[in-house]
Amino acid sequence: MKLTYSAASPFARKVRIAAIELGLIDKIEFVPTAVAPAKPNDEYSQINPLKKLPVLIADNGDVILDSYVIIEYLDELAGGGKLIPASGPTRWKVKSDHSLLQGMLDSMLLCRYEKMVRPQGLQWQAWSDDHWNRAWNGMAHFEKDTDALARPLDIAQIGLVCVLGYADFRFPDRPWRASYPKLDAFHEKMLTRPSVKISVPPPA
Amino acid sequence: MKLTYSAASPFARKVRIAAIELGLIDKIEFVPTAVAPAKPNDEYSQINPLKKLPVLIADNGDVILDSYVIIEYLDELAGGGKLIPASGPTRWKVKSDHSLLQGMLDSMLLCRYEKMVRPQGLQWQAWSDDHWNRAWNGMAHFEKDTDALARPLDIAQIGLVCVLGYADFRFPDRPWRASYPKLDAFHEKMLTRPSVKISVPPPA
Repeated sequence: MKLTYSAASPFARKVRIAAIELGLIDKIEFVPTAVAPAKPNDEYSQINPLKKLPVLIADNGDVILDSYVIIEYLDELAGGGKLIPASGPTRWKVKSDHSLLQGMLDSMLLCRYEKMVRPQGLQWQAWSDDHWNRAWNGMAHFEKDTDALARPLDIAQIGLVCVLGYADFRFPDRPWRASYPKLDAFHEKMLTRPSVKISVPPPA
Repeated sequence: MKLTYSAASPFARKVRIAAIELGLIDKIEFVPTAVAPAKPNDEYSQINPLKKLPVLIADNGDVILDSYVIIEYLDELAGGGKLIPASGPTRWKVKSDHSLLQGMLDSMLLCRYEKMVRPQGLQWQAWSDDHWNRAWNGMAHFEKDTDALARPLDIAQIGLVCVLGYADFRFPDRPWRASYPKLDAFHEKMLTRPSVKISVPPPA
């Protein structure tokens, strides 16, 4: 299998951590891929019209997206029910938590594009503030969710560590640790996993 | 169950169509909800920090998001394997198709926000063009995918009709029918379903 990948993408990091935890990392070839808003990449748009990372290209050529579906697919390859509960009420909690985290990442990327990619003079502060608040309110939500932080490893916890790592990577001026001490402890605990440690984004 | 809803949201429309097709519509109370970028809605942010539609509030109070997970949940309530194949290779094709459509909707909403919500003078044409191209290239992808248009009803087909309906609703100046005759025929066929017909967005 091939995975389109960038070390800066929190969505690709999520898949990498999952693949390591599921014991499938050796079956995946990472294909470095560069995408950016307002920059065409016609070759990659043929593979994924959304021009987003990551996609998984299965051995039969099928293109699997997005990062959530890729992890579902890998989880099933690994026997099923490993990172996404196969049944029971926790199933919907984990899935909903993960959707919330996915949206937090989307908003953080929109903040970054607004500040760093959009030409100066065209930036709209209210847009950045709104999207940052979504991520920040999401962190507040998880700070209060003792269960989500303490469950056995699941896709939502992997999503959460990628949110926090992305905050460190791209928003060092927005310190979250002082406001969210339980997330800080969770993040430290997650960093003891080699999968999490090895995939920390490189210094910007 | 309660569903936060707006007739203008293609994501909420997707859930409405699915709920009708699954025979669950009478169990869902629609809660009209207004959200917009750069406008706070503190009450709703308490329910969903992403400030996005829709979420499903289950009878036990659990909040389920996003539209994909809500439809998965409803599908399971209806017995499972109805709109999302429970196994086999079609399963990953339908899920990947749906992820692509979800991303196309995200890009179309970003185009709309850029043109209609962001203050004039702060708009960036290259951003709008890029996101419109993602939706447009996605349509081209499905125009060539005879299988996706002909399968028994599934979540991806529901997503596709919502993409096309949203294009009609918000982008009447971007006629897609002439470029994509197979999508036009698919859309007409889908409109014969009461679930699709009743949920067409009202005139803007």
